Amino acid sequence: MIGKEMIRFIADLYPICRSITGDGVRRTLAKVGERIPLQIHEVPSGTQVFDWNVPREWNIRDAWIKDPHGRKIVDFQHLNLHVLNYSVPVHKKVSLAPLKEHLFTLPDQPGLVPYRTSYYKEAWGFCMAHHQWLGLEEGEYEVCIDSTLEDGSLTYGECFLKGETEREVLISCHVCHPSLCNDNLSGLAVCTFLAEELAKAPRRLSYRFVFIPGTIGSITWLALNDSSRIAAGLVAANLGDPGHFHYKKTRDGNAEIDRAVLQVLRGQEHGVEEFVPFGYDERQYSSPGFKLPVGSLTRTPYGRYPEYHTSADNLDFIKAESLEGSLATYRSVMNVLEGNRRYQNLNPNCEPQLGRRGLYRMIGGDDSGRQRELALLWVLNFSDGEHGLLDIAERSGMPFEAIQAAAEALLEVELLREIP
Amino acid sequence: MIGKEMIRFIADLYPICRSITGDGVRRTLAKVGERIPLQIHEVPSGTQVFDWNVPREWNIRDAWIKDPHGRKIVDFQHLNLHVLNYSVPVHKKVSLAPLKEHLFTLPDQPGLVPYRTSYYKEAWGFCMAHHQWLGLEEGEYEVCIDSTLEDGSLTYGECFLKGETEREVLISCHVCHPSLCNDNLSGLAVCTFLAEELAKAPRRLSYRFVFIPGTIGSITWLALNDSSRIAAGLVAANLGDPGHFHYKKTRDGNAEIDRAVLQVLRGQEHGVEEFVPFGYDERQYSSPGFKLPVGSLTRTPYGRYPEYHTSADNLDFIKAESLEGSLATYRSVMNVLEGNRRYQNLNPNCEPQLGRRGLYRMIGGDDSGRQRELALLWVLNFSDGEHGLLDIAERSGMPFEAIQAAAEALLEVELLREIP
Amino acid sequence: MIGKEMIRFIADLYPICRSITGDGVRRTLAKVGERIPLQIHEVPSGTQVFDWNVPREWNIRDAWIKDPHGRKIVDFQHLNLHVLNYSVPVHKKVSLAPLKEHLFTLPDQPGLVPYRTSYYKEAWGFCMAHHQWLGLEEGEYEVCIDSTLEDGSLTYGECFLKGETEREVLISCHVCHPSLCNDNLSGLAVCTFLAEELAKAPRRLSYRFVFIPGTIGSITWLALNDSSRIAAGLVAANLGDPGHFHYKKTRDGNAEIDRAVLQVLRGQEHGVEEFVPFGYDERQYSSPGFKLPVGSLTRTPYGRYPEYHTSADNLDFIKAESLEGSLATYRSVMNVLEGNRRYQNLNPNCEPQLGRRGLYRMIGGDDSGRQRELALLWVLNFSDGEHGLLDIAERSGMPFEAIQAAAEALLEVELLREIP
Repeated sequence: MIGKEMIRFIADLYPICRSITGDGVRRTLAKVGERIPLQIHEVPSGTQVFDWNVPREWNIRDAWIKDPHGRKIVDFQHLNLHVLNYSVPVHKKVSLAPLKEHLFTLPDQPGLVPYRTSYYKEAWGFCMAHHQWLGLEEGEYEVCIDSTLEDGSLTYGECFLKGETEREVLISCHVCHPSLCNDNLSGLAVCTFLAEELAKAPRRLSYRFVFIPGTIGSITWLALNDSSRIAAGLVAANLGDPGHFHYKKTRDGNAEIDRAVLQVLRGQEHGVEEFVPFGYDERQYSSPGFKLPVGSLTRTPYGRYPEYHTSADNLDFIKAESLEGSLATYRSVMNVLEGNRRYQNLNPNCEPQLGRRGLYRMIGGDDSGRQRELALLWVLNFSDGEHGLLDIAERSGMPFEAIQAAAEALLEVELLREIP
Repeated sequence: MIGKEMIRFIADLYPICRSITGDGVRRTLAKVGERIPLQIHEVPSGTQVFDWNVPREWNIRDAWIKDPHGRKIVDFQHLNLHVLNYSVPVHKKVSLAPLKEHLFTLPDQPGLVPYRTSYYKEAWGFCMAHHQWLGLEEGEYEVCIDSTLEDGSLTYGECFLKGETEREVLISCHVCHPSLCNDNLSGLAVCTFLAEELAKAPRRLSYRFVFIPGTIGSITWLALNDSSRIAAGLVAANLGDPGHFHYKKTRDGNAEIDRAVLQVLRGQEHGVEEFVPFGYDERQYSSPGFKLPVGSLTRTPYGRYPEYHTSADNLDFIKAESLEGSLATYRSVMNVLEGNRRYQNLNPNCEPQLGRRGLYRMIGGDDSGRQRELALLWVLNFSDGEHGLLDIAERSGMPFEAIQAAAEALLEVELLREIP
Repeated sequence: MIGKEMIRFIADLYPICRSITGDGVRRTLAKVGERIPLQIHEVPSGTQVFDWNVPREWNIRDAWIKDPHGRKIVDFQHLNLHVLNYSVPVHKKVSLAPLKEHLFTLPDQPGLVPYRTSYYKEAWGFCMAHHQWLGLEEGEYEVCIDSTLEDGSLTYGECFLKGETEREVLISCHVCHPSLCNDNLSGLAVCTFLAEELAKAPRRLSYRFVFIPGTIGSITWLALNDSSRIAAGLVAANLGDPGHFHYKKTRDGNAEIDRAVLQVLRGQEHGVEEFVPFGYDERQYSSPGFKLPVGSLTRTPYGRYPEYHTSADNLDFIKAESLEGSLATYRSVMNVLEGNRRYQNLNPNCEPQLGRRGLYRMIGGDDSGRQRELALLWVLNFSDGEHGLLDIAERSGMPFEAIQAAAEALLEVELLREIP
């Protein structure tokens, strides 16, 4: 069962302390590169990328707080969420009141450790469970964050699978979250396993998988690469929880990718929302200078499950069946994009006689094979140069696969030709 | 009551064994031709019509099965549905097991005889009630089908009523069903009686009624005739059952005929469905080489009533009031098409003073004649060169007749002129 | 409280007997002119205005009926609704039966006096409570209407407030109703107080307030003035009752004014209806020769409250809070029209770094200021040259003011420039 293999892949990546730069990203991409052809890019700190500059590289070895009795009460080695991500180094003694200005907790979820970052403002801090925070006694504490924030580079990975045509499908996932499983090791796993499958299959379209740190990564990628061939795209995240699928549409709202995803989700419970200019990296892909047709296909969206951005988004939270179902759904969407060809009916005047071509039941009034015949008639009627197979699937309400099979049968008896 | 006359017309046609070719069609069209000017066309067997060939002509005189005791247990003279339509001739003795391969029944409706055809595959067979089939004893049976399947011709009828303009309304009904009343002697009756009325009335539009065998008939008609002047059309069938009206839209879905039918059906319970490329002859009229604006206005659609294509679709099933109501509805649709003219408001700047033209109540605050005045105001405001009377009826929500009457009143006082 | 001031303003105007011409209109406009710069126009009787002629001027000094005992049973001095508006002079004795042909009552509201007019047909008459009418005894009555209907002029007022641009907002109210408060002294008050406020404020747009008699006033105005710069408009009436707001759309149905009003009404209970070519003066503004984008924003629409056009539409019926709320709503609509500018995002490639411009929270995962940031992102993403702030407010679902504030903040840091 591939879901279990995805769980193992995630379990390997879980302990690594990722951030928007640094060795955690490199170690993560190395694991991805064991499964798929991955090109690693290093972009030097300070490189200007549109309105931004690539930040200094952050690395961390250890971090802890010792209480007035010298006991480690917070330990990065135990859970890397304990450190405010991108904390500058610190090692000093500090009494409780000033220490508290550097502590982050979740009063409404007192047993969980929050995930906090400070990428663009130099700061140091720790995250802990609120019930632990409540028990902190007065006295002198020792804090240590053994990190470096120095010139280096931003690292991202790219897996490009060339197809018959230059039209590209972009699949983007972020790789900057430390020990958090649904957001977003699940996305990373779905992307890796999908790329692995697509690499082995014949492809009409080209596929570009980008494994990037959130925000600064997509900005960097857009600044340094040519995005003009991207014809469809998805941002992958939150794909391991047990919730149903949720699709956030592209900025345009009616792009081929929107219709392909909704076609695949049809008939199962799912959520849909219009584009909003926040969320994950679709924010950048959809900025007015690009307006790329990139949607986001997740299970429960970010921020809408209580485990989100807490220590509870761990290996217990994600499910093998969910991951496997997410991979299957992404696969189906790609199948629709691959198969959404346009055909010309070569016998447009009235219906052709399907019976003598073996495509039609012979005794009138009998109902066997009805669905297959309906699909043939839909494809024939709407293969008028104006409709592709996805149009026909939408209009007929029939499954894309049935429409595709009908087109193939009609091609075989030379009643259709493909419009290039 | 015209409904009763329609019933008598149908009762005359009921016993005739029609098929897609043969004398049954000729005898049927002869009856139609007693009421309306009907041109009969004979298209020789073998004529190529697009992807099809006109089949050989089928005629039948008799058919029966005798049981092992020599008793006729199935008799074409009693009910012509008993024979598989288009059966090749046969006369032989046969034991029960091989006979059963030639018997068709309805296990779910064991008391009814089904209607089955085999136009395009040579076969012979009989249809019978399932409960009779259950009682068949072992032994040797004698079967006889005294039919011929020979070169001849396909017969169809056409009634063309020339109007002021060349724009044509096509009304199509099939004439190929044997003893079946709702599908489709009801359609045949509505078409005949409607043509009879229209022939006597002044006509802006031209009307073309075609009485054709299903599928091969419309294909033949389209192959051999000029359909380029057809501006609207309806396929008529299932118009005698007691169900409410049901409209299947044209392929385009927003043609004038669609809007005219929905305008007429507004305010009464009715069904509407989008075009699907199967059903009756709208399949052919709507094929991508033609895309004619032809919908189908029925009562209960084919296949959605249990009597459909069984011996229960007989004279008891259809109702005089239903037929009369169907004729009235078709008449109203034609009235909308006839009356959907476009006018120019000759006093476009502000409202004209209707009061001094006798078109407006004089004491402000009184409500008599309000509906009539509203219709006047709607017509004036939207007779801007962009809207016809059907547009105005739709937008105002007022009955088409009220809008039409308002336009006539305004024409009379020279506040409108017709846009040709 | 400005609502109370509006009530006082209305109370001053209430006793005046207005009509479509005459001194009642002049006295009313004089009161309006005490608050705002008002130009008074006098259009001579007989002037042709499109299909109409300006009628003779009507003035009235007194009117009464004396019963057979010489007692005044109906007295214009007590309530000017008692006289059929535009009654020609009469002074004679008349017995009950012929008198009754000149009496108007409301049998369904027997305690109320109706409002009736006869502008375009010479007539005289009285309006009274139905229960009084029921008690009329046989005998000789004396009737007197001391009115004049002579050549004179039609009077209207206009307040034009020039803005930076020539695009005009038209606000129209009728001034022809006698002692009736909601219809339409409330509209007159909202227009006057709104004009008073706008006169003091900086204005991008120009505003044209017209105070005109219904129907003939708008026809006259359109015939004698240039309406080509009117970019948006509202007809104001029924703005003092306690009902919720109701908007009648422009003829087009999707004009900027439609969207501005619906934006302002969003989130509060309100009614909306499509344009119909009757009602108030929007009938004339929307005639096919003009098609001006003029809607009508009221509280309970005319004819839908029982006090409408009766003596119960008096000072007790209208409420200070309702008037104040109506003024505020009109003010908000004007704010949307004023603020609906279009901007170009000067950093269109990906999001700009808002953090270093002080526009973004620094610790990731914290939720303070979220709404403000979302507004910034919406404005940035959709300031692509194709969307104005109203588009963005609609699409985002955020309040217009939030979107406007975001645009101002982005302008300040030079991330936007206005598109002229």
